Amino acid sequence: MEVGQVLHMNAGTGETSYSNNSHLQKKVISMTMPIIEEAMTNLYSSTSPSSLVIADLGCSSGHNSLFVVAELIKIVEKLRQESGHQSPEIQVLLNDLPGNDFNTIFKSLPSFQKNLSSQLEAKDAGPYFFSGVPGSFYGRLFMKKSLHFLHSSYSLHWLSQVPEQIENNKRNIYMASTSPPNVPKAYYSQFQRDFSTFLKCRAEEMVTGGRMVLTFIGRKSEDPINKEGSNSMWDLLAMALNDMVSKGLIKEEKMDSFNIPHYTPSLSEVKSEILEEGSFSIDRLEFSEISRSTYYKECNHSDVSEIAANSIRAVAEPLLVSHFGDGIIEKVFSRYKEILSEHISQDQFLLGVTNLIVSVTKK
Amino acid sequence: MEVGQVLHMNAGTGETSYSNNSHLQKKVISMTMPIIEEAMTNLYSSTSPSSLVIADLGCSSGHNSLFVVAELIKIVEKLRQESGHQSPEIQVLLNDLPGNDFNTIFKSLPSFQKNLSSQLEAKDAGPYFFSGVPGSFYGRLFMKKSLHFLHSSYSLHWLSQVPEQIENNKRNIYMASTSPPNVPKAYYSQFQRDFSTFLKCRAEEMVTGGRMVLTFIGRKSEDPINKEGSNSMWDLLAMALNDMVSKGLIKEEKMDSFNIPHYTPSLSEVKSEILEEGSFSIDRLEFSEISRSTYYKECNHSDVSEIAANSIRAVAEPLLVSHFGDGIIEKVFSRYKEILSEHISQDQFLLGVTNLIVSVTKK
Repeated sequence: MEVGQVLHMNAGTGETSYSNNSHLQKKVISMTMPIIEEAMTNLYSSTSPSSLVIADLGCSSGHNSLFVVAELIKIVEKLRQESGHQSPEIQVLLNDLPGNDFNTIFKSLPSFQKNLSSQLEAKDAGPYFFSGVPGSFYGRLFMKKSLHFLHSSYSLHWLSQVPEQIENNKRNIYMASTSPPNVPKAYYSQFQRDFSTFLKCRAEEMVTGGRMVLTFIGRKSEDPINKEGSNSMWDLLAMALNDMVSKGLIKEEKMDSFNIPHYTPSLSEVKSEILEEGSFSIDRLEFSEISRSTYYKECNHSDVSEIAANSIRAVAEPLLVSHFGDGIIEKVFSRYKEILSEHISQDQFLLGVTNLIVSVTKK
Repeated sequence: MEVGQVLHMNAGTGETSYSNNSHLQKKVISMTMPIIEEAMTNLYSSTSPSSLVIADLGCSSGHNSLFVVAELIKIVEKLRQESGHQSPEIQVLLNDLPGNDFNTIFKSLPSFQKNLSSQLEAKDAGPYFFSGVPGSFYGRLFMKKSLHFLHSSYSLHWLSQVPEQIENNKRNIYMASTSPPNVPKAYYSQFQRDFSTFLKCRAEEMVTGGRMVLTFIGRKSEDPINKEGSNSMWDLLAMALNDMVSKGLIKEEKMDSFNIPHYTPSLSEVKSEILEEGSFSIDRLEFSEISRSTYYKECNHSDVSEIAANSIRAVAEPLLVSHFGDGIIEKVFSRYKEILSEHISQDQFLLGVTNLIVSVTKK
């Protein structure tokens, strides 16, 4: 089963967690906005399109995607007013896996469009058309040469599947310092396959001169086994799961066969895939860091370990449930929260989330 | 509130009824298939497109829509093989109101696509892309000149709203022989406004030479107040509601302010709107009748009045709940079933459903 399928299978289970997560995502999107604006401005200036097709890949239940969409529409509206053009027709394509809750997005669209219209001053702005596109972005989703602008936030660090032949990654659930050497190799290969497939599909779907802005969790070190934020989170979750094994609540074989389909590439790893695929020129490729401690403070919540636990639970729970069943979940996350509180003051844990931002133009 | 909004609001309530209804719809679609095939063949022959955008308007929860889509794809695949062309990329746009259950359609797509691939013999068939498009078809839904083929089955007999100023239509819920003369006038005006808006929007969205096939319930008589099948059904439902008023279970004013946003146009009414709008040339405009008695027999159900009651309940329940609340529903339909059994042998009730099929080409 494809990981995204798993990720969305139980999308109804973690409401609080999802909203915590979406707070972080919104922060990331705000941070990326100047780069998104730059890309859209360059696209608009070079083409002055009478119609514009915008896609958001990995839109989830839509709140953050619609935030980006609203910003993009405002940027286009500003640009066309400055240039004295008619408002282009804008088609917005919201993509996620078939198990995503598109109904919630669709039901929110009438009020979203009403709010948007009231925010845009010009009466001749629009029209705007919205579609939901169910499917994995590690395959073709759209017609040939049909997209002008593509955005994806916080989705591409998920692999299409757990790397194969890493059954020897015992007591770990991700690349860790105790992982055998084949494990980081297998993870990197899977990332290469997935990211190059992603680029190849998008290259077919985008028009020449089209822009794509991607944001996902990356890492600064070239060493895939490092102590940057994201790895630590999985290491601590592995500790919680190993505790369950010690207590006989999870079978050892079951633990050994569980791995997270996640990869946080370095800047040079991303760059080399883009160059090798060859269809895109790189406009920007940079890091942007979010301090976890600042983020936790902004959450206005007294219990930092609870926020952190909820935040990882939001993404890990569906994967855990799919592998271990749902009987164990409360115990795992209760123990995980304890472990987090013991580690929350450690510098390495508070290092922050390293985001990779890529802005490219279709050649 | 727009009627469709109401119609979908309680889509979860009448599962049996919906499947009965969808049985009838599937019959209608099968009956329309030769005309759909003719339209697609003419479109393909005249353009040999390398990409094809197909829309289904009023797709509901998708089973019947996907049936049509599969047939359309098979027709295109046959045509392109016969002409020795490459398979065109096909984009399928599934439209219904924002409250429709798109999640169910989307979840069924992976297995639908798998089945479809196994039915198509050629390995180079496709690719096919699917989107959900939430919104009312009495407004713009798609980009300018973006559609090649449009299909809509059993949706266009629903008006965008209940006609205004028909508060004097006392004891009736639709045009009836006891309705004051302003009532059929108001219904006809609403139909004219809605159908011409529909045509105008589609004219903007379709490419020159694009084909549109519409099927909906119509009437043979030029007199809007007639005893054809559909009117009788509403008359009998009005009887059930009036019984509730007599028993003091529904207030008289509440009954008087309830009307069904439904219109079954005659052939000449449809023709005159198409001619007046002017963007489409008419290829076919014809009746096709489904005998209710045959249909009921095919349902393989011993209690004909129950099938008939369920079938009208499927469409009427959301409207009734929205107006009268849900407390009264079981009583209304229990009485409705009794009334139906009393009328089920009457010739007029068994007259059949008159379907209007329209096949047009965008000029």
